[in-house]
Amino acid sequence: MPKPAAGTDRITLLDAAHVVPVRPVRGSLPNHSVAIQGDRIAGLMPTREASQRWPDARHVDLTHHALLPGFINAHTHSPMTLLRGYADDMALDTWLREHIWPVEARFVDSGFVEDGTRLAVAEMLRSGTTCFNDMYFFPGSTVEVCREAGMRINAGLTIIEMKSSWAADVEAYIEKGLRLLEQWQGQPGVNFALAPHSPYTVSDGTLERIEQLSARHGLRVHMHLLETEWELKQSLQQHEQTPLERLKRHGLLNQRLTAVHMTQLTADDIEDVAEAGASVVHCPQSNLKLASGFCPVAELSDAGVNVALGTDGAAANNDLDMLGEAQTAALLAKGVAVDAKAVNAFQALEMMTVNGAQALGLEEIIGSIEVGKQADLCALDLDAPRMHPLHHVISQLVYAAASAQVTDVWVAGRRLLKSGALTTIDEAAVIHSAAHWRDRMARFGAAADH
Amino acid sequence: MPKPAAGTDRITLLDAAHVVPVRPVRGSLPNHSVAIQGDRIAGLMPTREASQRWPDARHVDLTHHALLPGFINAHTHSPMTLLRGYADDMALDTWLREHIWPVEARFVDSGFVEDGTRLAVAEMLRSGTTCFNDMYFFPGSTVEVCREAGMRINAGLTIIEMKSSWAADVEAYIEKGLRLLEQWQGQPGVNFALAPHSPYTVSDGTLERIEQLSARHGLRVHMHLLETEWELKQSLQQHEQTPLERLKRHGLLNQRLTAVHMTQLTADDIEDVAEAGASVVHCPQSNLKLASGFCPVAELSDAGVNVALGTDGAAANNDLDMLGEAQTAALLAKGVAVDAKAVNAFQALEMMTVNGAQALGLEEIIGSIEVGKQADLCALDLDAPRMHPLHHVISQLVYAAASAQVTDVWVAGRRLLKSGALTTIDEAAVIHSAAHWRDRMARFGAAADH
Repeated sequence: MPKPAAGTDRITLLDAAHVVPVRPVRGSLPNHSVAIQGDRIAGLMPTREASQRWPDARHVDLTHHALLPGFINAHTHSPMTLLRGYADDMALDTWLREHIWPVEARFVDSGFVEDGTRLAVAEMLRSGTTCFNDMYFFPGSTVEVCREAGMRINAGLTIIEMKSSWAADVEAYIEKGLRLLEQWQGQPGVNFALAPHSPYTVSDGTLERIEQLSARHGLRVHMHLLETEWELKQSLQQHEQTPLERLKRHGLLNQRLTAVHMTQLTADDIEDVAEAGASVVHCPQSNLKLASGFCPVAELSDAGVNVALGTDGAAANNDLDMLGEAQTAALLAKGVAVDAKAVNAFQALEMMTVNGAQALGLEEIIGSIEVGKQADLCALDLDAPRMHPLHHVISQLVYAAASAQVTDVWVAGRRLLKSGALTTIDEAAVIHSAAHWRDRMARFGAAADH
Repeated sequence: MPKPAAGTDRITLLDAAHVVPVRPVRGSLPNHSVAIQGDRIAGLMPTREASQRWPDARHVDLTHHALLPGFINAHTHSPMTLLRGYADDMALDTWLREHIWPVEARFVDSGFVEDGTRLAVAEMLRSGTTCFNDMYFFPGSTVEVCREAGMRINAGLTIIEMKSSWAADVEAYIEKGLRLLEQWQGQPGVNFALAPHSPYTVSDGTLERIEQLSARHGLRVHMHLLETEWELKQSLQQHEQTPLERLKRHGLLNQRLTAVHMTQLTADDIEDVAEAGASVVHCPQSNLKLASGFCPVAELSDAGVNVALGTDGAAANNDLDMLGEAQTAALLAKGVAVDAKAVNAFQALEMMTVNGAQALGLEEIIGSIEVGKQADLCALDLDAPRMHPLHHVISQLVYAAASAQVTDVWVAGRRLLKSGALTTIDEAAVIHSAAHWRDRMARFGAAADH
């Protein structure tokens, strides 16, 4: 049966205690309803008015809830959920060389990526995330899992000068990436970015190719940048330029750049990034856990840079919880700036919604509750002791709410989490498969120890 | 009916997937049971063995759970839950003078303290906390709510050179405090500390009195110390000594001191604190949110100082979630020390359990799952996507678990949270009363704006 055109779908009204649209309204609206028609937002108005306007609408009772735009995780490596807690509390170098890379070399294949992505999507939907910006091997498998689950994805076409089970060399990474692009182009909910791993893992020649591909296909470039002091020193030694100068030289410091981490920035760098119109993705918990350094979020924001928020992979976090990440971002920014006014609750909320959409080039279709945008939404239950008294809704969401309060999530109008239950993912099977991977890795770890 | 002696009570066996005793075992024990008899822990052994030893025991099925010592919140102002989110994102001075102090002056009375404490205890029990170290006005009201709810408390006998609705002057604070001590002495679950607010709010004469009272009654001294740079400068200006030097001069830098915050420490200070055997309470989220500074947790621990963990009051956090606090503490310590090995997962767990017990002088009776100690326990459900795969139990609890997974809590053998429901607190009534206080404060705030 052909799906009716969006305009003729029956209206669903989400009747919420508080709607937090983020744009254009920057506050919270009590007793408002969001109308969904097909995959889009068809209205936002007081509940009483909405009921009169659409008397035949279906209703979803969210009168004990806050309704927000779905969260956008602007940087993660979703399949790495299978390595959550595999190795912790180590220096970055030991962690990568002795633990993460060996286990990845042994286990990563399309099955690992499918199972890891499904676990990640389950966790993300449960915590209110409706779209994520991914970077890993076998991105086609990640896209397929997202399509099957109804999750929105911005998939990275990974490029790295390193042989993997996914591709043998840079040419193969690029070729496989472009094939995926062709295969999925125009499919709803699926978008792509070029994803060179980092300045220290791609050559000058490859950076040139990436610039050309980005311009030709209108693709954004999603890249780790200035994560550690080591990276800065290594670049100065090898290239006699900072990583940022190198990207600039290759024409990559522009409004299509999504630079992740950025803990090593001078005042001049911040000005350059602002002028170029590039986006920065801040991953505070990962930066802390790996002792990478502090991203100057308040200064970047003050300079007009679009700062989004990412969890990084679960191996370095160890969860994909955007509410927790936003709270850490708001708190840490104050400590780092020595200013309790830095990154207020609303700015933290922008970082996980509209700013994320902009960092993915999707600001026209997601990131806020506005008529015409995709119906990507999440509802949080306000009936917990930690939510009371409710003096200020947005402050409460950022500083006191926990992701377990997320009860309902819609992506493109489809209810993927319904009163606390996932509707498109078999959670027991996902957990069972994770246990299977754990057992295999435990045997491998035990063998490696002998 | 008289309660039978502990030794004759029927045994209850908590059969857990993983028991994390913290002491003396420093790892996790799979398929173990904790035996409770009366208010105490009577055994810890493999479940099969426990069932044979006590064939008539009652069983609680925790075979999808981790069982831990209850968390100890080593610094909070519990009634301030009613001011949660009342004012955020402001400089400390504006926040206190223009918002917190005026609203406290208008509203704080024994009713406010009772309702705020009840809300705090509900939130703490729901997140696995079984004991807290409190500092506020009307401590007798806080103690009464705890007795009624079955919560363990270390109540601060607040002393401050400032008139309040609780006491007119220092003499009155001390006299009322000593009366409470007499009234509650020896009651199970109720302990006390002297709680001078801070060096800048008590005179030299008062510090002298406090030293005498501490020695005479064997009371610990719970005090804000070196929270901000302002405090350090003010002390140098007024006393020509740092706050730490001043406490030392008055004989208060000793093993009975529980010093909260400690963000302004030199290497010599750290050595002094270690030598004195004083405890430090780290409140990372409050220090970040108020931009107070960074407590050098890794250096303090390395020097052998006992570091416990506190949430501070909900007005400056904005929750009382010890798991969240422990995660922030472990992450932030790495960032501040520029060392990914600083404060590992087990150390973070110690900070919220045994170290907390020591900071309260209760290390003989709580803080770990050891035979003879009080049965203060919490169980976390491991069946959530964010808990999988389960490579390492303790890492998962600190870096990935969320407090919403806490399903069951026992204090002194009494089950105060049972499969997610509070057994001694009427949660709906608590939330209703919080809404009532919010309405009153909103009217006051609106009036103040005119």
